[in-house]
Amino acid sequence: MDKNRTMIKAGIIGGAGYTAGELIRILLNHPQVELVFVNSTSNAGNKLTDVHGGLLGETDMNFTDQLPYDKIDVLFFCTAHGDTKKFLDANDIPNHLKIIDLSTDYRHKAEGNKFVYGLPELNKQEIKQSSYVANPGCFATAIQLGLLPLAKANKLTSEIHVNAITGSTGAGVKPSATSHFSWRENNISVYKAFEHQHLTEIKQSLNQLQANFGEDINFIPVRGNFTRGIFVSTYLNYDGTIEDAEKLYKDYYKDSPFTIISDKNIDLKQVVNTNKCVLHLEKHGNKLLILSCIDNLVKGASGQAVHNMNLIFGLEETIGLNLKASAF
Amino acid sequence: MDKNRTMIKAGIIGGAGYTAGELIRILLNHPQVELVFVNSTSNAGNKLTDVHGGLLGETDMNFTDQLPYDKIDVLFFCTAHGDTKKFLDANDIPNHLKIIDLSTDYRHKAEGNKFVYGLPELNKQEIKQSSYVANPGCFATAIQLGLLPLAKANKLTSEIHVNAITGSTGAGVKPSATSHFSWRENNISVYKAFEHQHLTEIKQSLNQLQANFGEDINFIPVRGNFTRGIFVSTYLNYDGTIEDAEKLYKDYYKDSPFTIISDKNIDLKQVVNTNKCVLHLEKHGNKLLILSCIDNLVKGASGQAVHNMNLIFGLEETIGLNLKASAF
Amino acid sequence: MDKNRTMIKAGIIGGAGYTAGELIRILLNHPQVELVFVNSTSNAGNKLTDVHGGLLGETDMNFTDQLPYDKIDVLFFCTAHGDTKKFLDANDIPNHLKIIDLSTDYRHKAEGNKFVYGLPELNKQEIKQSSYVANPGCFATAIQLGLLPLAKANKLTSEIHVNAITGSTGAGVKPSATSHFSWRENNISVYKAFEHQHLTEIKQSLNQLQANFGEDINFIPVRGNFTRGIFVSTYLNYDGTIEDAEKLYKDYYKDSPFTIISDKNIDLKQVVNTNKCVLHLEKHGNKLLILSCIDNLVKGASGQAVHNMNLIFGLEETIGLNLKASAF
Amino acid sequence: MDKNRTMIKAGIIGGAGYTAGELIRILLNHPQVELVFVNSTSNAGNKLTDVHGGLLGETDMNFTDQLPYDKIDVLFFCTAHGDTKKFLDANDIPNHLKIIDLSTDYRHKAEGNKFVYGLPELNKQEIKQSSYVANPGCFATAIQLGLLPLAKANKLTSEIHVNAITGSTGAGVKPSATSHFSWRENNISVYKAFEHQHLTEIKQSLNQLQANFGEDINFIPVRGNFTRGIFVSTYLNYDGTIEDAEKLYKDYYKDSPFTIISDKNIDLKQVVNTNKCVLHLEKHGNKLLILSCIDNLVKGASGQAVHNMNLIFGLEETIGLNLKASAF
Repeated sequence: MDKNRTMIKAGIIGGAGYTAGELIRILLNHPQVELVFVNSTSNAGNKLTDVHGGLLGETDMNFTDQLPYDKIDVLFFCTAHGDTKKFLDANDIPNHLKIIDLSTDYRHKAEGNKFVYGLPELNKQEIKQSSYVANPGCFATAIQLGLLPLAKANKLTSEIHVNAITGSTGAGVKPSATSHFSWRENNISVYKAFEHQHLTEIKQSLNQLQANFGEDINFIPVRGNFTRGIFVSTYLNYDGTIEDAEKLYKDYYKDSPFTIISDKNIDLKQVVNTNKCVLHLEKHGNKLLILSCIDNLVKGASGQAVHNMNLIFGLEETIGLNLKASAF
Repeated sequence: MDKNRTMIKAGIIGGAGYTAGELIRILLNHPQVELVFVNSTSNAGNKLTDVHGGLLGETDMNFTDQLPYDKIDVLFFCTAHGDTKKFLDANDIPNHLKIIDLSTDYRHKAEGNKFVYGLPELNKQEIKQSSYVANPGCFATAIQLGLLPLAKANKLTSEIHVNAITGSTGAGVKPSATSHFSWRENNISVYKAFEHQHLTEIKQSLNQLQANFGEDINFIPVRGNFTRGIFVSTYLNYDGTIEDAEKLYKDYYKDSPFTIISDKNIDLKQVVNTNKCVLHLEKHGNKLLILSCIDNLVKGASGQAVHNMNLIFGLEETIGLNLKASAF
Repeated sequence: MDKNRTMIKAGIIGGAGYTAGELIRILLNHPQVELVFVNSTSNAGNKLTDVHGGLLGETDMNFTDQLPYDKIDVLFFCTAHGDTKKFLDANDIPNHLKIIDLSTDYRHKAEGNKFVYGLPELNKQEIKQSSYVANPGCFATAIQLGLLPLAKANKLTSEIHVNAITGSTGAGVKPSATSHFSWRENNISVYKAFEHQHLTEIKQSLNQLQANFGEDINFIPVRGNFTRGIFVSTYLNYDGTIEDAEKLYKDYYKDSPFTIISDKNIDLKQVVNTNKCVLHLEKHGNKLLILSCIDNLVKGASGQAVHNMNLIFGLEETIGLNLKASAF
Repeated sequence: MDKNRTMIKAGIIGGAGYTAGELIRILLNHPQVELVFVNSTSNAGNKLTDVHGGLLGETDMNFTDQLPYDKIDVLFFCTAHGDTKKFLDANDIPNHLKIIDLSTDYRHKAEGNKFVYGLPELNKQEIKQSSYVANPGCFATAIQLGLLPLAKANKLTSEIHVNAITGSTGAGVKPSATSHFSWRENNISVYKAFEHQHLTEIKQSLNQLQANFGEDINFIPVRGNFTRGIFVSTYLNYDGTIEDAEKLYKDYYKDSPFTIISDKNIDLKQVVNTNKCVLHLEKHGNKLLILSCIDNLVKGASGQAVHNMNLIFGLEETIGLNLKASAF
């Protein structure tokens, strides 16, 4: 490794969950990061590999209940929703520390919220200059990436129809009836139809680009029988040609290394285990269909968090994130 | 078995495919059916169990290339789309024979088409009096059952939005890139968006009940990574209450033993391996959401064909179709 | 239904688990059984369909905390291991009641144990004359059926090597780390190698037929990423020809309607959702390979329990158990 | 990237199959490799991304039917078994070219075979000095890694019992009845029991370390319902303690960065999408149980091929192979 490279020192709070595991797997192979500690109250003293078996042979690190802020440059929160805010309200964090929060706590703009919404395809310049980043939700990432170019062009003029199917890791490590293998295998179900909490951040981003957008987003979230990935079908009225639409999208994403427009039909496994978002457009009658897919744990969580870290610290945008697609 | 029972003698043409296999599995356990022959040109002379391994221990029958019409009362066509028509154009079928066609060939009303569209929840009386039944498509069955009560009440007043995910058996036994295990496992993709061929029969049925319905049906078919079943999410504008809607549906299906309204949220495996269609309704804002699911090979094909046979021959409607749900 | 048929009245204790669900699904379609009550302390008052969603449309029955012994002829215990014995020690059961216990509590012969080991392929006559039956374990069923004919012929003369992979339903409804979908999907692991508790009942049965058998049974249980079924590969030294072996097996099972020798290679889905055991034999060098598979919830639990009930009450052996294979 | 680094120029023959796809995915992210061409007669002119969709956004390269030997340093053969030999017999390859063959053609020692068997854990020094490497088979890799330390210590003294379950990608991209999703999903079956072709290379390697080993290896290959990975259970008589065995294994693999002994029980997904082999040992009675698992496409094929390339060219052994485990 190049000795002159900046080495960024990172800590993680909430280290036993799925997004933390993914973040550790990415950071351990990141050429410009040193992982200093992984904090977990429930697992303090245990090996990381006891919880995240895929790390075997890559680290001998243990979970800690300590928080040595002075040894790190950036702190990732992989905490449950609500817990980052509780933590930050209760603890003084040194000023030098950059914070990247994977929870939902600071995604919504509000009086006194100093966090930038960390969707690089929307806010790259702001992220580069920020110290606090709120990492987007997984559904929200996949859905927004399918709509931002239209919003930018003020082309959101009708209701939007969104159906998105997600892998089981989106529901976290805690066992539940709907994450039991015997139930979920080969099963399909819908939950929180029209009312998923990610709608708030989606609308906020669309309005950032197209202030006059106020139509309904009809969003049906679906539980799929796979572990990784989100596949989204979105459609809305669009009066241009398919070529117009493709040009809008390619222009919008021309500086976004991870978001790719496919001329051909797409499938979920093109992105599984990568930080990519792949998009495909079709025009049918007066409707524009936008297919988009991401890996919920990578582009939808920990990969995007590292992307944000790269931006904050002025690193090459893709470093540490050229992950081999599993493909199968 | 009651010796006085009518025994219906059945033959099958096109016996090597998935719907034929399912039909054989059902008919062999049907207490009032004797399966007389299974015709397959490609497999003539082979045992049924060579192709349909799940029948081992249940039958020693061989495929035949003969067509002994005089020994049967009913002939099922499990032929590829187009082939039933070719066959009937080229062959004289005795008048006494009842025909149930699982292909798409006679589903659409047309000059000279003597087939009744075999959706019992729509045409039960006509089926009982018919000799020729065109068995509905699998997607078409699941989608129509979610909409018929509204059409009956003239409540289809807006565009309809349909997303339906299907198991791999819907694509048949012939290998293809999208039915390769290595590709399809844990994968999701969309095909024929807005243009699936089943839209024709769906619109035909809705117009049968509500002649003035002419809005778009925006239908996104999805390939799922499971083998059996179709799960449909449908929504449209509806100005009544959820109670109004539930009453419409319960009234409409009160004499339909296989179509059940669930007060609770539903999941696909409630119906897998059964002839049921399970429905669930939710109201969100001005939208009515209808979830419906079926087993594509049973209610969406061979089970419905047997249901039609039961109706034609005046048997108890559910006989031979009380199939144990696999549930897992 | 034939009005002259005997109707057997059945009750179930421990109704909320997987084997109880399967038993209910089978009994509701059994033409000579009336299900009188399903006892569950944790679910008393709830509908059966709240827990066993696959029953929707088939029953309106509720769970009860009552035990109206006087209204039933047979009582099934779907209790956790240890709990049947506790229950029978604490409660007086009327003498007229037949008991079929699906737990492990009475499978092992012991002073004072009045239960017959309920493997019909081994003890059919004893079961017919018994009032108390201990239903075999799922692994134990599949493994024994692969070895009984050899034991009967005194042909067990070497160590036995057994590898058996099981679906997730074998581990029950209670969530655990190894039944979490995110972990188990596409995963394989081994547990309790050489020490699985079913070895005791397996050896007991082999010794019943071949008293001098004392070699090791090397048994590797494997967790598979599917929900239903057990697939067993067994091999041992065997000095006869493959024809000799096939003759032994076909002779042994000639009166066993559910256990079938396949001349061709077999696969698990031939038996899923059925009460069958399918066997296939190969000879390689001096080794005889025996492949056997069952559905763990049917032939390995609730289907076998109903088979035992049929035997106890003198019914046709297969009644209520001609279940359609799911096949896919 | 460090400008002073050696850049190795690579070509691939047989670029449309699964191992080629995996090799391309690895090489495109390898910091010291430039992929110069991918030869495929059937796909010449098409984009790599048309066949290997997971590469979208990573390369614009097309398949070629040309073979510009002078532009490359190393040539990988991802050809069907038999075709590498045919190719090398028919074509003159320049002397400077290193060859790494992923087919079975040169794995077995024979008069005139100049290829080194490319299992780094066995032949690291020979590989470093070779120009021609025969990459091991996938099953052969996982099974040998479970046995080499015992062979090295002359501890193979009894029959060996091996059961290994493999993902579907091991069977290649060509469709077949056993790779059809509808058949394979949730299914288990055995093939080539006792007679799998990889036994030859396994025995060859064991005899290289322990010349007197001549006992049977009883190998049952199993088709699993997952796409990636091989999980092997091996056992044999062993007279030492578990501590003795663990010491043997840890000593043997102390310089093997990808082969790791786990003190805890293991599962397949610890290695999926990585170049690792994870091993776990247990002692039961006089038997030593060895569990081993690999990703068949990485450590069992293309990752190992890149490992061999790294060795041949004197690169850091693990470079380009620190792949993030998919874990789920």
